[in-house]
Amino acid sequence: MTTRDDLTLAHRLADAAGDAIRPFFRARFDLEFKSDKSPVTEADKAAEAAIRAILEKERPGDGIIGEEYGATREDAERVWILDPIDGTRSFVAGRPIFGTLIALTQAGWPTIGIIDQPIAKERWAGMMGQPTTFNGKSVRTRACRSLEEAIVASTGPQYFPGCTGEHFSRLAGQCRDTVWGGDCYNYALVASGHVDIVVEAGLKLHDIAALVPVVEGAGGRMCDWAGEPIDAQSDGRVIAAGDPARVDDIIEALAQGHEGH
Amino acid sequence: MTTRDDLTLAHRLADAAGDAIRPFFRARFDLEFKSDKSPVTEADKAAEAAIRAILEKERPGDGIIGEEYGATREDAERVWILDPIDGTRSFVAGRPIFGTLIALTQAGWPTIGIIDQPIAKERWAGMMGQPTTFNGKSVRTRACRSLEEAIVASTGPQYFPGCTGEHFSRLAGQCRDTVWGGDCYNYALVASGHVDIVVEAGLKLHDIAALVPVVEGAGGRMCDWAGEPIDAQSDGRVIAAGDPARVDDIIEALAQGHEGH
Repeated sequence: MTTRDDLTLAHRLADAAGDAIRPFFRARFDLEFKSDKSPVTEADKAAEAAIRAILEKERPGDGIIGEEYGATREDAERVWILDPIDGTRSFVAGRPIFGTLIALTQAGWPTIGIIDQPIAKERWAGMMGQPTTFNGKSVRTRACRSLEEAIVASTGPQYFPGCTGEHFSRLAGQCRDTVWGGDCYNYALVASGHVDIVVEAGLKLHDIAALVPVVEGAGGRMCDWAGEPIDAQSDGRVIAAGDPARVDDIIEALAQGHEGH
Repeated sequence: MTTRDDLTLAHRLADAAGDAIRPFFRARFDLEFKSDKSPVTEADKAAEAAIRAILEKERPGDGIIGEEYGATREDAERVWILDPIDGTRSFVAGRPIFGTLIALTQAGWPTIGIIDQPIAKERWAGMMGQPTTFNGKSVRTRACRSLEEAIVASTGPQYFPGCTGEHFSRLAGQCRDTVWGGDCYNYALVASGHVDIVVEAGLKLHDIAALVPVVEGAGGRMCDWAGEPIDAQSDGRVIAAGDPARVDDIIEALAQGHEGH
């Protein structure tokens, strides 16, 4: 079971990650590149280590899957999913729009999610069945009457694998505006009612799990490009809609892309 | 002549713009669309009005060219160039990476530039012949030994007119990483040594003028895609390089794009 105690602990984990990250922001730090060429910094590692140290002490039976240090007891009923810095490229470039992602999953379903921006000290927290909070106050997504009114956000055209970028372009062409960059921060802005839609592809479990309780607890909906709910087996193609009434329009627009596929 | 008094005044203008903008951030505001479909908000108008009111009192003989309220005495020797919110789309989406741009030009050449981020309270200030400051402390661009080491930033693929986007792609393909979004904030991050290159096209004078003293006073270089210095007649194709030694490589990479053009 997921309890308020778990949410309290999740906040503690985010505090620890922020303390580990802040000294490295816009400072000198070691930078490496993983086999997929994505960057990883000392800050990513320090933040995940700080979170894991607390979890091992407070929840020794729970599983942990982290972007930097891999999986421990990943078959447990309860698994914490960690991305210490989602948007490492933004972090490296000195932009305060990356985030620490902390999720708790229960039987594969995300029940708690935190998106924390440690420089601006902005935190969105979601828990299944509870209203999402931004720095402690409830937030709601906004209504969106049609795609023509929508602001759609996505991190970058280069992150759409294969022909998924062409599908995205069809959607974006029907929306009012597209804003680029932002990683997890875009989903937080959906929860707060400033952005209407985020569509991405190629995401990993640690990129996604924390977003679901945040967006859905604010009244939005998250699903994959086929409209299926997000779970641990998702294919990384993600839709976040502030107004659930627009999900079908989004799926239809994405399906129009690139004849023959 | 441009004096330290002008720089002091420019800081006062940025303070006034920030005071006008902050109440609207992530709040409800009126939103209109200009003939080019770019958004303009109450915050843009309030900020430019606040700046103009001070200028009309303090510098009644100077010209003013502002994004929202047009040109006054634009043939004066000294002209203030204003973009109250550069990155209105980011502002509208609730992202704290837009900026207020304030420039003073003398005979068409930018001599003072301010990039102000009023939510994070971050301000970069440049003045011809003086070191650029970030919140009052000097900053420097960083060295970049080759394009392969470079982080390149640009606001969005949709802002490259005609085939300029294909030229940009050739450059981006030779760089280590591309980060999207950011508007004027990217140039500020070049000045502070966190981003190496910004390349854009289709910019207007009010988007560009303030950037030049900020980037160049930090040791970087700004020019157009042909390597010519930026003045009031620039064609809107802009290069900002933190390391001036990379400018030729950038121009060469951009020139490779799109055979036949």
